[in-house]
Amino acid sequence: MTGVLFIVGLGPGPDSWLVPEARGALAQSDALIGYKPYTDRVPERHDLERFSSDNRVELDRARHALQLAQAGRKVAVVSGGDAGVFGMAAAIFEAVEKGDPAWRDLDIRVVPGVSAAIAAAARLGAPLGHDFCVMSLSDNLKPWEVVVKRLVAAAQADFVIALYNPASKARPRQIFEAFDLLRTHKNGATPVAFARAIGRPDERILITDLAQADPSVVDMATLVLIGSSETRFVSRSGGRPWLLTPRTYGAAR
Amino acid sequence: MTGVLFIVGLGPGPDSWLVPEARGALAQSDALIGYKPYTDRVPERHDLERFSSDNRVELDRARHALQLAQAGRKVAVVSGGDAGVFGMAAAIFEAVEKGDPAWRDLDIRVVPGVSAAIAAAARLGAPLGHDFCVMSLSDNLKPWEVVVKRLVAAAQADFVIALYNPASKARPRQIFEAFDLLRTHKNGATPVAFARAIGRPDERILITDLAQADPSVVDMATLVLIGSSETRFVSRSGGRPWLLTPRTYGAAR
Repeated sequence: MTGVLFIVGLGPGPDSWLVPEARGALAQSDALIGYKPYTDRVPERHDLERFSSDNRVELDRARHALQLAQAGRKVAVVSGGDAGVFGMAAAIFEAVEKGDPAWRDLDIRVVPGVSAAIAAAARLGAPLGHDFCVMSLSDNLKPWEVVVKRLVAAAQADFVIALYNPASKARPRQIFEAFDLLRTHKNGATPVAFARAIGRPDERILITDLAQADPSVVDMATLVLIGSSETRFVSRSGGRPWLLTPRTYGAAR
Repeated sequence: MTGVLFIVGLGPGPDSWLVPEARGALAQSDALIGYKPYTDRVPERHDLERFSSDNRVELDRARHALQLAQAGRKVAVVSGGDAGVFGMAAAIFEAVEKGDPAWRDLDIRVVPGVSAAIAAAARLGAPLGHDFCVMSLSDNLKPWEVVVKRLVAAAQADFVIALYNPASKARPRQIFEAFDLLRTHKNGATPVAFARAIGRPDERILITDLAQADPSVVDMATLVLIGSSETRFVSRSGGRPWLLTPRTYGAAR
């Protein structure tokens, strides 16, 4: 009865971005738990029991995983990207905090992964080459006023801004509100990238600027990057420009 | 003469955190360029020429890499962690921007990696489970006033704060100034983690709070995490507490 709970980030999509420790954790596990699009990415195996669930039942999923580990199972809970960044790690430890005190002494191991902002940045050049912030635009679990306060502070700090969960069918308008707000605080020439499904067959990247950006292309699979005052385009004749946030601040001014 | 330039993040240390695409890029390369502690992590190979350099000559290193790729070589430039986050990606595109116009059309590919904040968070639990920012504390390339402005804005935004390059032999006092500043803007009970050399044999993690934190333990290999108002400890009887920044903001208040 030596159960273990691995919290695994599968990366944005391709196996080439899955760290070996994650592969090893999946190979050792006899139970796989997660949102179905993520569990579907783990190959079938006769000795791996699969528990796939819908979105937005993270705490139920976390409790189930903890119960199985408590019963001696080797459990892998999977997220896309990195499990620590808007993934299952927080849900697991919230369940630990509120649940059976014995869960606190389970063998729980978080395996790091490639988060969407990191993967999108790699495709784009070096947009995260200087200070940045990472925010979820969803108000499902926080008040919209907190989102607004953070966007304004991020603009004042002149951080590059990476937005996760920018829109969904139930929240189609917030990304428009966010852009309206940012346009009042930042220069219209600020580079913007919409990076959708990075690393997957339907990957689509759109480069624009804050004044011209049309958020209607944004969906749940899109990572939105908004530059700092230093972020710029490095043009290429043969393709879309690179994005660069230089290491040096203010030198060119 | 089909040169290529791979910009590769080696992750924080262990091979188990090196994504397969990075391994593949290194295997294809015939030239390896980087700061010596990073190139030392790539195994010797008779057909891999090594160019190791000191710290803080990133632009020279970038130009050298671009020249070799232009000459038809397959070049890997390596960083620790993720190359896009305070790594070589920004230096390469800065060199492209200022250099030979032909460099703009080279085949340049950034390979994503596991950044130090992601790895530290995995060890700590789920400290990055909600909105956060990533900052370099170094004023080598930006004015200290910008650092201060960003720290204050990050505190006002109530972001979890991940500090890279928190101290060096030449900059031993800035982390003390940063903590003094944060103590005037944040609650003393805010969880703090000093995560040193994560994933390496000399890994050392210290958990404390903002009031008690003693930055004298901090060095260049340390990633400093300072919680938001929501970040808390989840105690364990058998070890140091987990850190949790829950997905829900303000629910427990």
